[in-house]
Amino acid sequence: MSTPVSSHAHADDAEEGLTFRPKFDASGLVTCVATDAASGEVLMVAHMNEEALRRTIETGEGWYYSRSRKALWKKGETSGHVQRVVEMRTDCDQDAVWIRVEQTGAACHTGRRSCFYRAVTGNGAGGATLSFVDAERG
Amino acid sequence: MSTPVSSHAHADDAEEGLTFRPKFDASGLVTCVATDAASGEVLMVAHMNEEALRRTIETGEGWYYSRSRKALWKKGETSGHVQRVVEMRTDCDQDAVWIRVEQTGAACHTGRRSCFYRAVTGNGAGGATLSFVDAERG
Repeated sequence: MSTPVSSHAHADDAEEGLTFRPKFDASGLVTCVATDAASGEVLMVAHMNEEALRRTIETGEGWYYSRSRKALWKKGETSGHVQRVVEMRTDCDQDAVWIRVEQTGAACHTGRRSCFYRAVTGNGAGGATLSFVDAERG
Repeated sequence: MSTPVSSHAHADDAEEGLTFRPKFDASGLVTCVATDAASGEVLMVAHMNEEALRRTIETGEGWYYSRSRKALWKKGETSGHVQRVVEMRTDCDQDAVWIRVEQTGAACHTGRRSCFYRAVTGNGAGGATLSFVDAERG
């Protein structure tokens, strides 16, 4: 097996190191993509602040930060639609994380399994229209 | 089949409508998640401005906006690692898009298939460490 780590890499190098040092944006957030661990479907894209990230790692359940409500929230806290994290990964520059989850019920607040229930198709005139896909509510 | 559209929904409603009206952030960007159309793996998370989105829809190839370089870029323009878009979807509040792509070569600038080549694991003491996963370079 080839070694993925260059001999020149330092442990704290953002891209090649093994130190987790999330690159929070100006609002203190990283982007989080949650996918269904079984199907691979993208369930939602949301944000985590340092506290949400820490709680997700410690508890193994999905926590987020709501930009609109300016508040930490545990996914499923009121709905019961919790996310059990099977694996978390970070990307090359550590400004995003990907979690593969076992999703109880619906990830989307509209009651759908995934937030991505509409396809975008070009109309050939510079615009685009939407069409429902996998849009049944649970 | 149940109808996913409420009879009360208006065509231009962000969540239930069929009008594509991306909700750009203060910087004029939406988040884009690109996954491998065959494997479902998350390849990268990046951003699109209005022009990148329009070109992606019109050409069927992935275009992005680089926040660091402040420039529009076509994925693979110099590397040849282009993305053919199989499907684009948008989420409930239309501030993110998900594209399923056929990725030529590596999606990551480090030469790896995906930017998400490190797993994040809690160390039991409030911190986390990284480990390489699927990190071979192409």
